[in-house]
Amino acid sequence: MDDLTKPPSTELLVCVTCRRAGAVPVDDRRPGRALYDQITALDLPPGLRVTPTECLQNCDHGCTVALRGGDAKWTYVFANVDDQAHPQMILDGAAQYHAAEDGVIPWRQRPEHFKRNCIARIPPNTDPRND
Amino acid sequence: MDDLTKPPSTELLVCVTCRRAGAVPVDDRRPGRALYDQITALDLPPGLRVTPTECLQNCDHGCTVALRGGDAKWTYVFANVDDQAHPQMILDGAAQYHAAEDGVIPWRQRPEHFKRNCIARIPPNTDPRND
Repeated sequence: MDDLTKPPSTELLVCVTCRRAGAVPVDDRRPGRALYDQITALDLPPGLRVTPTECLQNCDHGCTVALRGGDAKWTYVFANVDDQAHPQMILDGAAQYHAAEDGVIPWRQRPEHFKRNCIARIPPNTDPRND
Repeated sequence: MDDLTKPPSTELLVCVTCRRAGAVPVDDRRPGRALYDQITALDLPPGLRVTPTECLQNCDHGCTVALRGGDAKWTYVFANVDDQAHPQMILDGAAQYHAAEDGVIPWRQRPEHFKRNCIARIPPNTDPRND
């Protein structure tokens, strides 16, 4: 039960079914799966967990990740993530998201990739019945 | 407190700051605000509430709406919604979403617009700390 007393963790959702148009595959894995493997091979910042996810339905602009962190935060979806170049940037951005009370990273501090490749965001949940 | 005993409602989020590229404005309202006004002027299906929202950051493909319904359901974001032609279709789809246990409307029953204009979806929440 201890876990329930902790603040909400931040969850990084990684679409493991993503392909990237024009990408030359390094091996048999889909780029989304390779991205997940690369990210989870790195040291994760405190409070972050990484969840492999089936299809986030952003198939034309993969790889795709999402960040969410409980009812008080905006949820963000980011596109065009590169499984080789971007894993550390994604984790750094996830740590910034985790530190932001409402999940909104101040614009000037936001990773350039987040600025240019946010395809959607969902507002905090204000309905107590939807807890 | 009675409300807390009810099942989660379905929330239709309507981006009221959306513009539509090439759209000829009917009046001073942004298309997103007009969409919200049109939707809320109709009879809402049971269990649905409609929430005006600031920028869902799908600005290139507005108008934009999202559907969510508690931790057990997928959240969906839909693009290219027309404020004049689509309000009833959006409400019909929202009713189908509300009826689907996990929010996934069976493909063959899904509105054509939902099939072709889903830009992202977020999976159900499985972390009890994120309640």
